[in-house]
Amino acid sequence: MKTVSETRCFGGIQGVYSHTSEACACDMTFALFLPEEARSVPVPILWYLSGLTCTHENAMTKAGAQAWCAEAGVALCLPDTSPRGADVADDDAFDLGQGAGFYVNATEAPWAPHYRMWDYVTQELPALVGSEFAVDLDRQSIFGHSMGGHGALTVAMTLPDRFRSVSAFAPIANPTASDWGRKQFGAYLGSDESRWSAHDSTLLMRESGFPGPVLVDQGTNDQFLDLLKPETLAEAMAARRQEGQFRLQKGYDHSYFFMSSFMEDHVAFHAEALYA
Amino acid sequence: MKTVSETRCFGGIQGVYSHTSEACACDMTFALFLPEEARSVPVPILWYLSGLTCTHENAMTKAGAQAWCAEAGVALCLPDTSPRGADVADDDAFDLGQGAGFYVNATEAPWAPHYRMWDYVTQELPALVGSEFAVDLDRQSIFGHSMGGHGALTVAMTLPDRFRSVSAFAPIANPTASDWGRKQFGAYLGSDESRWSAHDSTLLMRESGFPGPVLVDQGTNDQFLDLLKPETLAEAMAARRQEGQFRLQKGYDHSYFFMSSFMEDHVAFHAEALYA
Repeated sequence: MKTVSETRCFGGIQGVYSHTSEACACDMTFALFLPEEARSVPVPILWYLSGLTCTHENAMTKAGAQAWCAEAGVALCLPDTSPRGADVADDDAFDLGQGAGFYVNATEAPWAPHYRMWDYVTQELPALVGSEFAVDLDRQSIFGHSMGGHGALTVAMTLPDRFRSVSAFAPIANPTASDWGRKQFGAYLGSDESRWSAHDSTLLMRESGFPGPVLVDQGTNDQFLDLLKPETLAEAMAARRQEGQFRLQKGYDHSYFFMSSFMEDHVAFHAEALYA
Repeated sequence: MKTVSETRCFGGIQGVYSHTSEACACDMTFALFLPEEARSVPVPILWYLSGLTCTHENAMTKAGAQAWCAEAGVALCLPDTSPRGADVADDDAFDLGQGAGFYVNATEAPWAPHYRMWDYVTQELPALVGSEFAVDLDRQSIFGHSMGGHGALTVAMTLPDRFRSVSAFAPIANPTASDWGRKQFGAYLGSDESRWSAHDSTLLMRESGFPGPVLVDQGTNDQFLDLLKPETLAEAMAARRQEGQFRLQKGYDHSYFFMSSFMEDHVAFHAEALYA
Protein backbone atom coordinates (compact mmCIF):
# COMPACT_ATOMS: atom_id res chain seq x y z
CA MET A 1 0.00 0.00 0.00
CA LYS A 2 1.25 3.47 -0.92
CA THR A 3 0.34 6.75 0.76
CA VAL A 4 -0.71 9.23 -1.92
CA SER A 5 -1.44 12.04 0.55
CA GLU A 6 -2.34 12.67 4.17
CA THR A 7 -3.88 15.99 5.12
CA ARG A 8 -5.03 17.31 8.48
CA CYS A 9 -8.81 17.69 8.45
CA PHE A 10 -11.25 18.36 11.31
CA GLY A 11 -8.66 17.28 13.86
CA GLY A 12 -8.05 13.96 12.09
CA ILE A 13 -6.36 12.87 8.87
CA GLN A 14 -7.82 12.73 5.38
CA GLY A 15 -5.68 10.16 3.61
CA VAL A 16 -5.54 8.88 0.05
CA TYR A 17 -3.88 5.51 -0.55
CA SER A 18 -3.23 3.23 -3.50
CA HIS A 19 -2.52 -0.48 -3.66
CA THR A 20 -2.39 -3.34 -6.12
CA SER A 21 -5.77 -5.03 -5.99
CA GLU A 22 -5.95 -8.77 -6.42
CA ALA A 23 -9.72 -8.70 -6.87
CA CYS A 24 -9.60 -6.10 -9.65
CA ALA A 25 -6.18 -7.05 -11.02
CA CYS A 26 -5.12 -3.42 -11.22
CA ASP A 27 -3.96 -0.56 -9.00
CA MET A 28 -6.80 0.91 -6.95
CA THR A 29 -7.02 4.16 -4.99
CA PHE A 30 -9.18 4.84 -1.96
CA ALA A 31 -9.69 7.64 0.56
CA LEU A 32 -9.88 7.17 4.31
CA PHE A 33 -10.74 9.77 6.91
CA LEU A 34 -9.55 8.91 10.41
CA PRO A 35 -10.87 11.04 13.27
CA GLU A 36 -8.58 12.21 16.05
CA GLU A 37 -9.67 9.32 18.31
CA ALA A 38 -8.02 6.82 15.95
CA ARG A 39 -4.61 7.96 17.22
CA SER A 40 -5.25 6.16 20.50
CA VAL A 41 -7.95 3.55 19.88
CA PRO A 42 -9.53 1.68 16.93
CA VAL A 43 -12.68 3.46 15.81
CA PRO A 44 -15.84 2.21 14.08
CA ILE A 45 -15.81 2.47 10.29
CA LEU A 46 -18.39 3.79 7.88
CA TRP A 47 -18.14 2.77 4.22
CA TYR A 48 -19.37 5.20 1.59
CA LEU A 49 -19.95 3.91 -1.94
CA SER A 50 -20.05 6.58 -4.64
CA GLY A 51 -22.16 6.96 -7.75
CA LEU A 52 -21.64 6.84 -11.50
CA THR A 53 -18.57 8.68 -12.86
CA CYS A 54 -17.10 9.21 -9.37
CA THR A 55 -13.71 8.21 -8.04
CA HIS A 56 -12.74 8.16 -4.34
CA GLU A 57 -12.25 11.91 -4.66
CA ASN A 58 -15.71 13.34 -5.32
CA ALA A 59 -17.25 12.55 -1.96
CA MET A 60 -13.96 13.28 -0.23
CA THR A 61 -14.04 16.89 -1.43
CA LYS A 62 -17.75 17.63 -1.89
CA ALA A 63 -19.92 15.61 0.49
CA GLY A 64 -18.94 17.44 3.67
CA ALA A 65 -18.87 14.17 5.64
CA GLN A 66 -15.63 14.67 7.55
CA ALA A 67 -17.14 17.30 9.87
CA TRP A 68 -19.73 14.85 11.13
CA CYS A 69 -17.44 11.80 11.18
CA ALA A 70 -15.00 13.82 13.30
CA GLU A 71 -17.78 14.79 15.65
CA ALA A 72 -18.97 11.18 15.90
CA GLY A 73 -15.52 9.58 16.15
CA VAL A 74 -16.05 7.37 13.11
CA ALA A 75 -13.67 6.50 10.27
CA LEU A 76 -14.94 7.00 6.73
CA CYS A 77 -13.67 4.91 3.81
CA LEU A 78 -14.39 5.97 0.22
CA PRO A 79 -13.53 3.30 -2.40
CA ASP A 80 -13.35 3.96 -6.11
CA THR A 81 -16.34 2.91 -8.24
CA SER A 82 -14.59 0.58 -10.70
CA PRO A 83 -11.26 -0.85 -11.72
CA ARG A 84 -9.06 1.66 -13.54
CA GLY A 85 -6.29 1.71 -16.09
CA ALA A 86 -5.43 1.68 -19.77
CA ASP A 87 -5.67 -2.13 -19.94
CA VAL A 88 -9.04 -2.22 -18.17
CA ALA A 89 -12.07 -2.62 -20.45
CA ASP A 90 -14.16 0.52 -20.84
CA ASP A 91 -17.10 1.93 -22.77
CA ASP A 92 -17.81 5.36 -24.21
CA ALA A 93 -21.02 5.62 -22.16
CA PHE A 94 -20.65 7.21 -18.73
CA ASP A 95 -22.79 4.49 -17.18
CA LEU A 96 -20.81 1.42 -18.27
CA GLY A 97 -17.19 0.46 -17.69
CA GLN A 98 -14.75 2.64 -15.76
CA GLY A 99 -16.60 4.75 -13.20
CA ALA A 100 -19.60 2.41 -13.36
CA GLY A 101 -18.70 -0.90 -11.70
CA PHE A 102 -22.14 -1.28 -10.12
CA TYR A 103 -20.60 -3.27 -7.23
CA VAL A 104 -20.86 -6.68 -8.90
CA ASN A 105 -18.39 -9.39 -9.97
CA ALA A 106 -18.53 -9.47 -13.75
CA THR A 107 -18.64 -12.88 -15.36
CA GLU A 108 -18.79 -11.81 -19.01
CA ALA A 109 -16.21 -10.66 -21.55
CA PRO A 110 -14.61 -8.17 -21.75
CA TRP A 111 -15.42 -7.22 -18.14
CA ALA A 112 -14.66 -10.36 -16.14
CA PRO A 113 -10.87 -9.94 -15.71
CA HIS A 114 -11.09 -6.66 -13.74
CA TYR A 115 -14.69 -5.79 -12.83
CA ARG A 116 -14.90 -7.52 -9.45
CA MET A 117 -16.05 -4.61 -7.34
CA TRP A 118 -18.22 -6.84 -5.13
CA ASP A 119 -15.20 -8.77 -3.93
CA TYR A 120 -13.18 -5.57 -3.73
CA VAL A 121 -15.51 -3.65 -1.43
CA THR A 122 -16.72 -6.63 0.63
CA GLN A 123 -13.47 -8.57 1.04
CA GLU A 124 -10.18 -7.16 -0.17
CA LEU A 125 -10.50 -3.53 0.88
CA PRO A 126 -11.97 -4.22 4.36
CA ALA A 127 -9.12 -6.67 5.02
CA LEU A 128 -6.54 -4.14 3.90
CA VAL A 129 -8.02 -1.21 5.83
CA GLY A 130 -8.51 -3.38 8.90
CA SER A 131 -4.88 -4.44 8.90
CA GLU A 132 -3.31 -1.07 8.10
CA PHE A 133 -5.37 1.40 10.15
CA ALA A 134 -6.84 1.82 13.62
CA VAL A 135 -10.37 0.77 12.70
CA ASP A 136 -12.61 -1.71 14.50
CA LEU A 137 -14.11 -4.15 11.99
CA ASP A 138 -16.59 -5.35 14.62
CA ARG A 139 -18.35 -2.01 14.19
CA GLN A 140 -19.10 -1.30 10.52
CA SER A 141 -21.90 0.50 8.73
CA ILE A 142 -22.34 1.38 5.06
CA PHE A 143 -24.00 4.01 2.92
CA GLY A 144 -23.79 5.50 -0.54
CA HIS A 145 -25.26 7.68 -3.27
CA SER A 146 -27.14 6.64 -6.43
CA MET A 147 -25.21 3.65 -7.86
CA GLY A 148 -23.41 3.63 -4.50
CA GLY A 149 -26.74 3.63 -2.65
CA HIS A 150 -27.59 0.53 -4.66
CA GLY A 151 -24.21 -0.91 -3.66
CA ALA A 152 -24.61 -0.09 0.03
CA LEU A 153 -28.10 -1.57 0.27
CA THR A 154 -27.27 -4.77 -1.61
CA VAL A 155 -24.02 -5.31 0.27
CA ALA A 156 -25.71 -4.72 3.66
CA MET A 157 -28.63 -7.04 2.95
CA THR A 158 -26.27 -9.74 1.64
CA LEU A 159 -23.94 -9.48 4.64
CA PRO A 160 -26.42 -8.65 7.40
CA ASP A 161 -24.13 -9.76 10.23
CA ARG A 162 -21.39 -7.40 9.24
CA PHE A 163 -23.17 -4.05 9.23
CA ARG A 164 -25.05 -2.39 12.06
CA SER A 165 -26.92 0.08 9.85
CA VAL A 166 -27.30 1.03 6.20
CA SER A 167 -28.40 4.21 4.47
CA ALA A 168 -28.61 5.63 0.98
CA PHE A 169 -29.03 8.92 -0.84
CA ALA A 170 -31.16 8.54 -3.96
CA PRO A 171 -30.24 4.89 -4.55
CA ILE A 172 -30.78 3.03 -7.81
CA ALA A 173 -33.47 1.07 -6.03
CA ASN A 174 -34.69 -1.42 -8.58
CA PRO A 175 -31.95 -1.90 -11.19
CA THR A 176 -33.39 -5.09 -12.69
CA ALA A 177 -36.31 -2.95 -13.90
CA SER A 178 -34.34 0.18 -14.87
CA ASP A 179 -32.08 1.29 -17.68
CA TRP A 180 -29.64 1.96 -14.84
CA GLY A 181 -29.23 -1.74 -14.14
CA ARG A 182 -30.52 -3.81 -17.04
CA LYS A 183 -27.85 -2.50 -19.40
CA GLN A 184 -25.04 -3.01 -16.90
CA PHE A 185 -26.18 -6.34 -15.49
CA GLY A 186 -26.61 -7.64 -19.02
CA ALA A 187 -23.06 -6.59 -19.83
CA TYR A 188 -21.37 -7.67 -16.60
CA LEU A 189 -23.49 -10.68 -15.56
CA GLY A 190 -24.93 -11.93 -18.83
CA SER A 191 -28.45 -12.35 -20.12
CA ASP A 192 -29.66 -14.85 -17.50
CA GLU A 193 -31.74 -12.45 -15.39
CA SER A 194 -31.94 -14.88 -12.48
CA ARG A 195 -28.34 -13.90 -11.74
CA TRP A 196 -29.26 -10.22 -11.46
CA SER A 197 -31.66 -10.43 -8.55
CA ALA A 198 -28.91 -10.72 -5.91
CA HIS A 199 -28.01 -7.15 -6.87
CA ASP A 200 -31.39 -5.45 -6.63
CA SER A 201 -32.17 -3.82 -3.30
CA THR A 202 -35.93 -3.85 -3.84
CA LEU A 203 -35.85 -7.60 -4.49
CA LEU A 204 -33.55 -8.20 -1.51
CA MET A 205 -35.79 -6.09 0.70
CA ARG A 206 -38.81 -8.15 -0.37
CA GLU A 207 -36.93 -11.37 0.24
CA SER A 208 -35.04 -10.75 3.46
CA GLY A 209 -34.67 -7.10 4.49
CA PHE A 210 -32.00 -5.94 6.91
CA PRO A 211 -31.78 -6.76 10.62
CA GLY A 212 -30.76 -3.22 11.64
CA PRO A 213 -32.12 0.22 10.84
CA VAL A 214 -32.34 1.53 7.24
CA LEU A 215 -32.41 5.20 6.22
CA VAL A 216 -33.13 6.37 2.66
CA ASP A 217 -33.26 10.01 1.49
CA GLN A 218 -34.67 10.88 -1.92
CA GLY A 219 -35.02 14.39 -3.37
CA THR A 220 -38.42 15.11 -4.91
CA ASN A 221 -36.82 17.13 -7.75
CA ASP A 222 -34.27 14.46 -8.59
CA GLN A 223 -33.70 14.55 -12.35
CA PHE A 224 -33.31 10.74 -12.43
CA LEU A 225 -36.44 9.62 -10.57
CA ASP A 226 -37.56 7.43 -13.48
CA LEU A 227 -34.27 5.52 -13.35
CA LEU A 228 -33.99 5.32 -9.57
CA LYS A 229 -37.51 3.99 -8.94
CA PRO A 230 -37.67 4.91 -5.24
CA GLU A 231 -41.32 3.84 -5.02
CA THR A 232 -40.40 0.19 -5.42
CA LEU A 233 -38.04 0.26 -2.45
CA ALA A 234 -40.43 2.32 -0.31
CA GLU A 235 -43.17 -0.20 -0.99
CA ALA A 236 -40.88 -3.12 -0.20
CA MET A 237 -39.68 -1.53 3.06
CA ALA A 238 -43.23 -0.89 4.21
CA ALA A 239 -44.45 -4.33 3.14
CA ARG A 240 -41.65 -6.02 5.10
CA ARG A 241 -42.16 -3.74 8.15
CA GLN A 242 -38.45 -2.96 7.82
CA GLU A 243 -37.12 -0.87 10.72
CA GLY A 244 -36.15 2.43 9.20
CA GLN A 245 -37.14 5.61 7.42
CA PHE A 246 -37.77 6.48 3.80
CA ARG A 247 -37.68 10.27 3.50
CA LEU A 248 -38.77 12.38 0.52
CA GLN A 249 -36.93 15.71 0.65
CA LYS A 250 -38.90 18.44 -1.05
CA GLY A 251 -37.17 20.34 -3.84
CA TYR A 252 -33.82 18.57 -3.68
CA ASP A 253 -32.17 17.11 -6.78
CA HIS A 254 -29.55 14.38 -7.34
CA SER A 255 -26.45 16.49 -6.61
CA TYR A 256 -23.87 16.72 -3.88
CA PHE A 257 -25.81 19.78 -2.65
CA PHE A 258 -28.63 17.36 -1.80
CA MET A 259 -26.35 14.82 -0.24
CA SER A 260 -24.32 17.27 1.82
CA SER A 261 -27.56 18.81 3.12
CA PHE A 262 -28.47 15.54 4.84
CA MET A 263 -25.00 14.16 5.52
CA GLU A 264 -25.18 15.16 9.20
CA ASP A 265 -28.36 13.08 9.61
CA HIS A 266 -26.85 10.03 7.94
CA VAL A 267 -23.60 10.06 9.88
CA ALA A 268 -25.49 10.58 13.16
CA PHE A 269 -27.81 7.70 12.21
CA HIS A 270 -24.86 5.38 11.70
CA ALA A 271 -22.96 6.66 14.73
CA GLU A 272 -25.88 5.81 16.95
CA ALA A 273 -25.77 2.21 15.72
CA LEU A 274 -21.98 2.01 15.80
CA TYR A 275 -21.70 3.33 19.35
CA ALA A 276 -24.76 1.50 20.69
CA MET B 1 -28.38 38.82 -15.10
CA LYS B 2 -28.80 35.19 -16.13
CA THR B 3 -29.54 32.25 -13.84
CA VAL B 4 -27.06 29.47 -14.60
CA SER B 5 -28.46 27.09 -11.98
CA GLU B 6 -30.43 27.06 -8.75
CA THR B 7 -30.19 23.99 -6.51
CA ARG B 8 -31.83 23.23 -3.20
CA CYS B 9 -29.18 23.08 -0.49
CA PHE B 10 -29.53 22.98 3.31
CA GLY B 11 -33.08 24.25 3.11
CA GLY B 12 -32.06 27.24 0.97
CA ILE B 13 -30.91 27.77 -2.61
CA GLN B 14 -27.41 27.47 -4.02
CA GLY B 15 -27.51 29.64 -7.12
CA VAL B 16 -25.03 30.39 -9.89
CA TYR B 17 -25.58 33.53 -11.95
CA SER B 18 -23.81 35.32 -14.78
CA HIS B 19 -23.97 38.92 -15.91
CA THR B 20 -22.15 41.38 -18.13
CA SER B 21 -19.76 43.28 -15.88
CA GLU B 22 -19.08 46.94 -16.59
CA ALA B 23 -16.14 47.01 -14.23
CA CYS B 24 -14.41 44.04 -15.87
CA ALA B 25 -15.80 44.57 -19.38
CA CYS B 26 -16.62 40.89 -19.74
CA ASP B 27 -19.18 38.33 -18.61
CA MET B 28 -18.72 37.33 -14.98
CA THR B 29 -20.13 34.41 -13.01
CA PHE B 30 -20.79 34.31 -9.28
CA ALA B 31 -22.37 31.93 -6.78
CA LEU B 32 -24.88 32.95 -4.10
CA PHE B 33 -26.25 30.79 -1.32
CA LEU B 34 -29.52 32.08 0.14
CA PRO B 35 -30.73 30.46 3.37
CA GLU B 36 -34.36 29.57 3.85
CA GLU B 37 -35.02 32.81 5.78
CA ALA B 38 -34.39 34.83 2.60
CA ARG B 39 -37.74 33.67 1.24
CA SER B 40 -39.49 35.96 3.71
CA VAL B 41 -37.01 38.63 4.80
CA PRO B 42 -33.70 40.15 3.62
CA VAL B 43 -30.79 38.41 5.32
CA PRO B 44 -27.26 39.58 6.18
CA ILE B 45 -24.62 38.79 3.57
CA LEU B 46 -21.18 37.29 3.90
CA TRP B 47 -18.70 37.76 1.04
CA TYR B 48 -16.13 35.07 0.42
CA LEU B 49 -13.15 35.87 -1.80
CA SER B 50 -11.34 32.86 -3.22
CA GLY B 51 -7.67 32.16 -3.84
CA LEU B 52 -5.39 31.70 -6.81
CA THR B 53 -6.71 29.51 -9.67
CA CYS B 54 -10.23 29.39 -8.21
CA THR B 55 -13.51 30.39 -9.81
CA HIS B 56 -16.80 30.89 -7.94
CA GLU B 57 -17.14 27.12 -7.98
CA ASN B 58 -14.32 25.81 -5.79
CA ALA B 59 -15.56 27.16 -2.48
CA MET B 60 -19.16 26.49 -3.50
CA THR B 61 -18.46 22.76 -3.77
CA LYS B 62 -15.55 22.18 -1.37
CA ALA B 63 -15.59 24.65 1.54
CA GLY B 64 -18.63 23.24 3.32
CA ALA B 65 -19.88 26.74 4.17
CA GLN B 66 -23.55 26.33 3.28
CA ALA B 67 -24.27 24.15 6.32
CA TRP B 68 -23.19 26.92 8.67
CA CYS B 69 -24.67 29.79 6.67
CA ALA B 70 -27.99 27.96 6.69
CA GLU B 71 -27.76 27.49 10.44
CA ALA B 72 -26.87 31.16 10.92
CA GLY B 73 -29.39 32.57 8.43
CA VAL B 74 -26.74 34.36 6.40
CA ALA B 75 -26.36 34.67 2.61
CA LEU B 76 -23.00 33.75 1.11
CA CYS B 77 -21.70 35.33 -2.10
CA LEU B 78 -18.72 33.83 -3.94
CA PRO B 79 -17.33 36.03 -6.73
CA ASP B 80 -14.86 34.83 -9.34
CA THR B 81 -11.19 35.74 -8.85
CA SER B 82 -10.54 37.58 -12.13
CA PRO B 83 -12.10 38.66 -15.40
CA ARG B 84 -12.50 35.78 -17.86
CA GLY B 85 -12.67 35.18 -21.58
CA ALA B 86 -10.68 34.65 -24.74
CA ASP B 87 -10.17 38.40 -25.22
CA VAL B 88 -9.03 38.96 -21.63
CA ALA B 89 -5.26 39.20 -21.13
CA ASP B 90 -3.69 36.16 -19.48
CA ASP B 91 -0.34 34.66 -18.55
CA ASP B 92 0.97 31.11 -18.56
CA ALA B 93 1.77 31.33 -14.84
CA PHE B 94 -1.00 30.24 -12.48
CA ASP B 95 -0.42 33.27 -10.28
CA LEU B 96 -0.87 36.03 -12.87
CA GLY B 97 -3.76 36.84 -15.17
CA GLN B 98 -6.97 34.82 -15.24
CA GLY B 99 -7.61 33.23 -11.87
CA ALA B 100 -5.25 35.68 -10.19
CA GLY B 101 -6.84 39.13 -10.15
CA PHE B 102 -5.50 39.96 -6.68
CA TYR B 103 -8.52 42.24 -6.04
CA VAL B 104 -6.96 45.38 -7.50
CA ASN B 105 -7.78 47.75 -10.37
CA ALA B 106 -5.01 47.30 -12.91
CA THR B 107 -3.57 50.46 -14.45
CA GLU B 108 -0.96 48.88 -16.71
CA ALA B 109 -1.05 47.23 -20.13
CA PRO B 110 -2.19 44.63 -21.03
CA TRP B 111 -4.23 44.26 -17.82
CA ALA B 112 -5.99 47.61 -17.42
CA PRO B 113 -8.99 47.04 -19.74
CA HIS B 114 -10.44 44.09 -17.75
CA TYR B 115 -8.59 43.56 -14.46
CA ARG B 116 -10.71 45.79 -12.22
CA MET B 117 -11.56 43.29 -9.51
CA TRP B 118 -11.46 45.93 -6.76
CA ASP B 119 -14.33 47.83 -8.35
CA TYR B 120 -16.08 44.58 -9.17
CA VAL B 121 -16.17 43.16 -5.65
CA THR B 122 -16.60 46.47 -3.80
CA GLN B 123 -19.08 48.24 -6.10
CA GLU B 124 -20.61 46.48 -9.04
CA LEU B 125 -21.35 43.07 -7.56
CA PRO B 126 -22.74 44.34 -4.22
CA ALA B 127 -25.06 46.68 -6.11
CA LEU B 128 -26.25 43.85 -8.36
CA VAL B 129 -26.74 41.33 -5.56
CA GLY B 130 -28.44 43.93 -3.39
CA SER B 131 -30.94 44.78 -6.11
CA GLU B 132 -31.68 41.23 -7.30
CA PHE B 133 -31.82 39.20 -4.07
CA ALA B 134 -33.27 39.38 -0.57
CA VAL B 135 -30.07 40.50 1.14
CA ASP B 136 -29.61 43.34 3.63
CA LEU B 137 -26.62 45.47 2.59
CA ASP B 138 -26.66 47.18 5.99
CA ARG B 139 -25.32 43.91 7.40
CA GLN B 140 -22.23 42.76 5.52
CA SER B 141 -19.10 40.88 6.51
CA ILE B 142 -16.25 39.51 4.41
CA PHE B 143 -13.71 36.70 4.44
CA GLY B 144 -11.52 34.72 2.11
CA HIS B 145 -8.69 32.27 1.56
CA SER B 146 -5.08 32.94 0.55
CA MET B 147 -5.25 35.59 -2.23
CA GLY B 148 -8.88 35.98 -1.16
CA GLY B 149 -7.84 36.44 2.46
CA HIS B 150 -5.65 39.28 1.22
CA GLY B 151 -8.63 40.64 -0.67
CA ALA B 152 -11.00 40.38 2.29
CA LEU B 153 -8.62 42.08 4.72
CA THR B 154 -7.69 44.92 2.37
CA VAL B 155 -11.29 45.53 1.31
CA ALA B 156 -12.51 45.53 4.92
CA MET B 157 -9.82 47.90 6.16
CA THR B 158 -10.39 50.24 3.22
CA LEU B 159 -14.17 50.28 3.68
CA PRO B 160 -14.42 49.99 7.47
CA ASP B 161 -17.95 51.37 7.67
CA ARG B 162 -19.34 48.72 5.36
CA PHE B 163 -18.29 45.51 7.10
CA ARG B 164 -19.05 44.38 10.62
CA SER B 165 -16.33 41.74 10.76
CA VAL B 166 -13.54 40.32 8.63
CA SER B 167 -11.73 36.99 8.67
CA ALA B 168 -9.19 35.10 6.59
CA PHE B 169 -7.82 31.63 6.09
CA ALA B 170 -4.08 31.66 5.37
CA PRO B 171 -4.10 35.15 3.78
CA ILE B 172 -1.31 36.54 1.65
CA ALA B 173 -0.55 38.89 4.50
CA ASN B 174 2.27 41.06 3.23
CA PRO B 175 2.20 40.98 -0.57
CA THR B 176 4.47 44.00 -1.05
CA ALA B 177 7.26 41.89 0.47
CA SER B 178 6.37 38.54 -1.15
CA ASP B 179 6.69 36.90 -4.55
CA TRP B 180 2.91 36.52 -4.19
CA GLY B 181 2.37 40.23 -4.53
CA ARG B 182 5.45 41.94 -5.92
CA LYS B 183 5.15 40.15 -9.25
CA GLN B 184 1.42 40.85 -9.57
CA PHE B 185 1.44 44.42 -8.25
CA GLY B 186 4.32 45.20 -10.59
CA ALA B 187 2.32 43.85 -13.52
CA TYR B 188 -1.09 45.27 -12.61
CA LEU B 189 -0.15 48.52 -10.83
CA GLY B 190 3.27 49.36 -12.27
CA SER B 191 6.68 49.81 -10.74
CA ASP B 192 5.86 52.72 -8.42
CA GLU B 193 5.68 50.78 -5.16
CA SER B 194 3.91 53.60 -3.33
CA ARG B 195 0.78 52.54 -5.23
CA TRP B 196 1.01 49.00 -3.86
CA SER B 197 0.65 49.77 -0.16
CA ALA B 198 -3.13 50.27 -0.32
CA HIS B 199 -3.31 46.54 -1.11
CA ASP B 200 -1.19 45.10 1.69
CA SER B 201 -3.09 44.04 4.79
CA THR B 202 -0.06 44.20 7.07
CA LEU B 203 0.57 47.80 6.03
CA LEU B 204 -3.12 48.68 6.37
CA MET B 205 -3.21 47.05 9.79
CA ARG B 206 -0.22 49.11 10.89
CA GLU B 207 -1.78 52.27 9.52
CA SER B 208 -5.43 52.00 10.52
CA GLY B 209 -6.64 48.51 11.49
CA PHE B 210 -10.29 47.58 11.44
CA PRO B 211 -13.02 48.91 13.74
CA GLY B 212 -14.67 45.50 14.24
CA PRO B 213 -13.35 42.05 15.13
CA VAL B 214 -10.75 40.27 12.98
CA LEU B 215 -10.19 36.49 12.84
CA VAL B 216 -7.25 34.87 11.05
CA ASP B 217 -6.54 31.13 10.85
CA GLN B 218 -3.20 29.85 9.60
CA GLY B 219 -2.13 26.20 9.34
CA THR B 220 1.31 25.46 10.77
CA ASN B 221 2.06 22.98 7.97
CA ASP B 222 1.01 25.34 5.20
CA GLN B 223 3.25 24.67 2.21
CA PHE B 224 3.25 28.39 1.33
CA LEU B 225 4.23 29.96 4.68
CA ASP B 226 7.21 31.77 3.12
CA LEU B 227 4.93 33.47 0.61
CA LEU B 228 2.07 34.21 3.02
CA LYS B 229 4.19 35.82 5.76
CA PRO B 230 1.65 35.45 8.57
CA GLU B 231 4.13 36.74 11.14
CA THR B 232 3.97 40.24 9.69
CA LEU B 233 0.20 40.47 10.10
CA ALA B 234 0.25 38.87 13.56
CA GLU B 235 2.81 41.43 14.67
CA ALA B 236 0.82 44.31 13.19
CA MET B 237 -2.43 43.13 14.83
CA ALA B 238 -0.77 42.87 18.21
CA ALA B 239 1.05 46.19 17.87
CA ARG B 240 -2.20 47.96 17.01
CA ARG B 241 -4.14 46.16 19.80
CA GLN B 242 -6.57 45.14 17.05
CA GLU B 243 -9.68 43.42 18.42
CA GLY B 244 -9.49 39.87 17.16
CA GLN B 245 -7.73 36.54 17.07
CA PHE B 246 -4.77 35.20 15.13
CA ARG B 247 -4.85 31.41 15.39
CA LEU B 248 -2.11 28.97 14.40
CA GLN B 249 -3.70 25.60 13.67
CA LYS B 250 -1.28 22.76 14.27
CA GLY B 251 -0.65 20.38 11.38
CA TYR B 252 -3.03 21.95 8.86
CA ASP B 253 -1.92 22.86 5.35
CA HIS B 254 -3.20 25.33 2.72
CA SER B 255 -6.02 23.16 1.33
CA TYR B 256 -9.78 23.17 1.45
CA PHE B 257 -9.46 20.43 4.10
CA PHE B 258 -7.93 23.11 6.35
CA MET B 259 -10.50 25.72 5.45
CA SER B 260 -13.52 23.47 5.81
CA SER B 261 -12.25 22.32 9.21
CA PHE B 262 -12.62 25.85 10.58
CA MET B 263 -15.48 27.09 8.41
CA GLU B 264 -18.00 26.67 11.23
CA ASP B 265 -15.92 28.96 13.47
CA HIS B 266 -15.62 31.64 10.80
CA VAL B 267 -19.29 31.69 9.86
CA ALA B 268 -20.30 31.77 13.54
CA PHE B 269 -17.82 34.62 14.13
CA HIS B 270 -19.40 36.66 11.35
CA ALA B 271 -22.96 35.71 12.29
CA GLU B 272 -22.40 37.04 15.79
CA ALA B 273 -21.41 40.42 14.33
CA LEU B 274 -24.13 40.40 11.67
CA TYR B 275 -26.93 39.58 14.12
CA ALA B 276 -25.58 41.78 16.96
